[in-house]
Amino acid sequence: MTKKFRALLEQIHEIRDLAATLALLEWDMQTYLPSGAVEGRGAQMETVSGVIHEKLTSRAFARALEAAEADEYESGSFEASLLRKLRHDFEKVRKMPARLVREIGAAGSAAYGAWMCAREAQEFAPFAPHLAKLLELRKEQAALFTPSGHPLDPLLDDYEEGLTVAEIDPVFAVLRREQTALVRAAADREQPDDSFIRSDPFSPEKQLELARFAAKRIGYDFRRGRIDLTEHPFTTSFGLTDVRITTKAFPHLPLSCLFSTIHEAGHAIYEQGIDRKFDRTPLADGASLAFHESQSRLWENQVGRGLPFWRWFYPYMQRKFPGRLDAVPLERFYGAINRVERSLVRIEADEATYNLHILLRYDLEKALFENRLSVAELPEAWNEKMREYLGIVPPNDLTGVLQDVHWAGGSFGYFPTYALGNLIAAQVWSLAHKEIPDLDEEIASGRFSTFRAFLRKKIHRYGASLPPKELLRKLTGAEKIDPAPFLAYLREKYCS
Amino acid sequence: MTKKFRALLEQIHEIRDLAATLALLEWDMQTYLPSGAVEGRGAQMETVSGVIHEKLTSRAFARALEAAEADEYESGSFEASLLRKLRHDFEKVRKMPARLVREIGAAGSAAYGAWMCAREAQEFAPFAPHLAKLLELRKEQAALFTPSGHPLDPLLDDYEEGLTVAEIDPVFAVLRREQTALVRAAADREQPDDSFIRSDPFSPEKQLELARFAAKRIGYDFRRGRIDLTEHPFTTSFGLTDVRITTKAFPHLPLSCLFSTIHEAGHAIYEQGIDRKFDRTPLADGASLAFHESQSRLWENQVGRGLPFWRWFYPYMQRKFPGRLDAVPLERFYGAINRVERSLVRIEADEATYNLHILLRYDLEKALFENRLSVAELPEAWNEKMREYLGIVPPNDLTGVLQDVHWAGGSFGYFPTYALGNLIAAQVWSLAHKEIPDLDEEIASGRFSTFRAFLRKKIHRYGASLPPKELLRKLTGAEKIDPAPFLAYLREKYCS
Repeated sequence: MTKKFRALLEQIHEIRDLAATLALLEWDMQTYLPSGAVEGRGAQMETVSGVIHEKLTSRAFARALEAAEADEYESGSFEASLLRKLRHDFEKVRKMPARLVREIGAAGSAAYGAWMCAREAQEFAPFAPHLAKLLELRKEQAALFTPSGHPLDPLLDDYEEGLTVAEIDPVFAVLRREQTALVRAAADREQPDDSFIRSDPFSPEKQLELARFAAKRIGYDFRRGRIDLTEHPFTTSFGLTDVRITTKAFPHLPLSCLFSTIHEAGHAIYEQGIDRKFDRTPLADGASLAFHESQSRLWENQVGRGLPFWRWFYPYMQRKFPGRLDAVPLERFYGAINRVERSLVRIEADEATYNLHILLRYDLEKALFENRLSVAELPEAWNEKMREYLGIVPPNDLTGVLQDVHWAGGSFGYFPTYALGNLIAAQVWSLAHKEIPDLDEEIASGRFSTFRAFLRKKIHRYGASLPPKELLRKLTGAEKIDPAPFLAYLREKYCS
Repeated sequence: MTKKFRALLEQIHEIRDLAATLALLEWDMQTYLPSGAVEGRGAQMETVSGVIHEKLTSRAFARALEAAEADEYESGSFEASLLRKLRHDFEKVRKMPARLVREIGAAGSAAYGAWMCAREAQEFAPFAPHLAKLLELRKEQAALFTPSGHPLDPLLDDYEEGLTVAEIDPVFAVLRREQTALVRAAADREQPDDSFIRSDPFSPEKQLELARFAAKRIGYDFRRGRIDLTEHPFTTSFGLTDVRITTKAFPHLPLSCLFSTIHEAGHAIYEQGIDRKFDRTPLADGASLAFHESQSRLWENQVGRGLPFWRWFYPYMQRKFPGRLDAVPLERFYGAINRVERSLVRIEADEATYNLHILLRYDLEKALFENRLSVAELPEAWNEKMREYLGIVPPNDLTGVLQDVHWAGGSFGYFPTYALGNLIAAQVWSLAHKEIPDLDEEIASGRFSTFRAFLRKKIHRYGASLPPKELLRKLTGAEKIDPAPFLAYLREKYCS
């Protein structure tokens, strides 16, 4: 390692440690913060964010980056990968005027507050001007990165490096055609009865014990992580040796805690599997949001909602809740946890319908950025799209256009990564079955190490050292996400 | 507020937020950190410490402080108090060469590791060279602040502004004469039987419930704090709206959890009572370590180990552990928790003997700094002093010279604040009885609000806006700590 690179690395370590610290402030806010301390915590988070931004935009950092770039590094080396990533991220930060960053921050805070009030009132109108302001600022931001193929492209790149509308459109067109037809067919059938898991409450403490057991067995490393309770489950990392997840248990939704824990553990297993030499640098992240989501979905859906998993796990569930499931055969239980339903709320959607919720949001984001749609028209457009994609219409904006926090936080272009994550998960699942012929049998006997080693070798260890497209090519041979394995997976599971 | 002062205040808020963040990293390390994340956390703490030090020693900060000082402020105003405090602290930081700070940090880390090993081996020798190195560096530091009355004075000032050997010596001389005699008399008597609280285990969960109840009732505000479990109880603050305490429960020491919780709650009630306008500045601290300790001791000993408290609390304790204490009358219980014993370990010492442990350490620190004693001679000197003050000799260095972490962490001049805290506590207790004639009756009926309001008005609200001597003068009319109330308190409790 050259002296110049080492000097850069020292600055990177410092910035990354501060980012970890910011993440801890956030984690603590969600888990253990006393009720009276919210305002003070906000000030602390703003201060640490400010210090990070100061360091990232300092002349010292720019000079250190340039100096290190002047040397030659072997392609694919740690140095070359880090420099590539830093330059990409740095150019994005550098082009943003401090004024715009501040304005987006302020507009985002105001919009978040207005969104909370609008939800309370179940009415979109008071939120509209705030959303319009945010949209205007994000358009201004996107315009800094011209020429771009589509005004949304620079924002897509914030979440998924190199992703463009031109790339998404054909993929989503396939989903629009095939997945809507598939959902119609599957949802029109009579759904399996699930009253036996909905009738009486299941002890949240026992649900948690079961979820912890599952997380441990699929390979979440508790020496480098922990599980706490929060209002909304999430995964956060303070470095590769400290990747924490959170969960929540509802007495009348006995599978929710388990599946959300497995989902978050999927995210965490990804990060825990990253090459340790990337620690304290921006390479110690997932390759992209879609790749991250692919790992959580893979564990939650393909593994966790699959029959092999329940062949192994169902007896544990039965024993944990004595008397409750003794009379329910495995197949009936499996059916009950895999119903296909036209539902209004994305985060409650099943794996068969989920992407349709994303298509809707993406259509609207595109229309907003192409100025084909105004913010005022959004609720109506939302409801129409719901009718088109899912055949149902929300009774109010709370279960319609106001349901997600993303736009209120100023995030446009984020949603597609969820659907792409589902597609990548299915691609990986299909590949895994080719490479590990008895994968289902291993899972059915509670063995996950071969599968985890496969994921680690093919995806996890690279962290963010490869751009997502390159990782995808390494993995599948193609740079483009292929929706076919996902559709085949759905078809086999729900229409056969 | 002038523009120049506001500019300074912005920098202060930033530094203080970073300090709060550092405290959170530490709290999390003691409470919830996964076992594999220790090293990464160390790096994060070092980074944040570095950023704080960078900002405190920056030219921007020095300029802002000078600029603000150029204006006139009313004596006793927020501005004047903050500037006084900042200048005092800043001069101490400014005079320290970065090299010395680094060397003390490195030597401290090495010494801490060596101390842990030495404890393991129950042998002082391997620790000695590390302690010698630290001592040498601290002497070098102290020499930067000449002329001083005594080489230990500049270090005493780090913990207790303005404290000197010349001030401590006559106070400790009185304790040496009176308290040793008093302990001899009290400890030679037959001690009350306490076998009934030592025989069978008491549920740690119930101990915790009881401790939480007591903390709440004496006035610890859970909206601005919380209690967690740690190996060693402590209080930490992330600003005036977030003052957290920790505790620990041992099955066979059923009072330990309660008293340590009350002790830490005493510290926390102090900080929670500081004027809110001081938040995010260095005025949002206790006036000094001795004042801080006075508050924890006051609640733990004068209140928590007093008969009025137990008149109120004993029924709760009896009900919490059904059948265990029904046959034990209050007076017998009170005796059992107030035994006087010659013991080897400071942190286990009772209130009657505690100060003697401090006198011993202070004598040795003075001798080390006057070059009358070498590090090699320390274990022997320790044992001799134990014989002199308490009439017992440790069987090994683990319960002797190796028992405390302070010296291993490079803290010389810290110990006296514990004894001074005990003395101030007794002064405050005596004053409180004068101002609140039925204080004992209030406590005996579980009412603490009058007493808390008294403490708040006389001590808490000032935070660190007054130097400790000035606060003491405001409180007692004299600048010097008076040992008489403490000795009178002990005499009445143990020798009457």
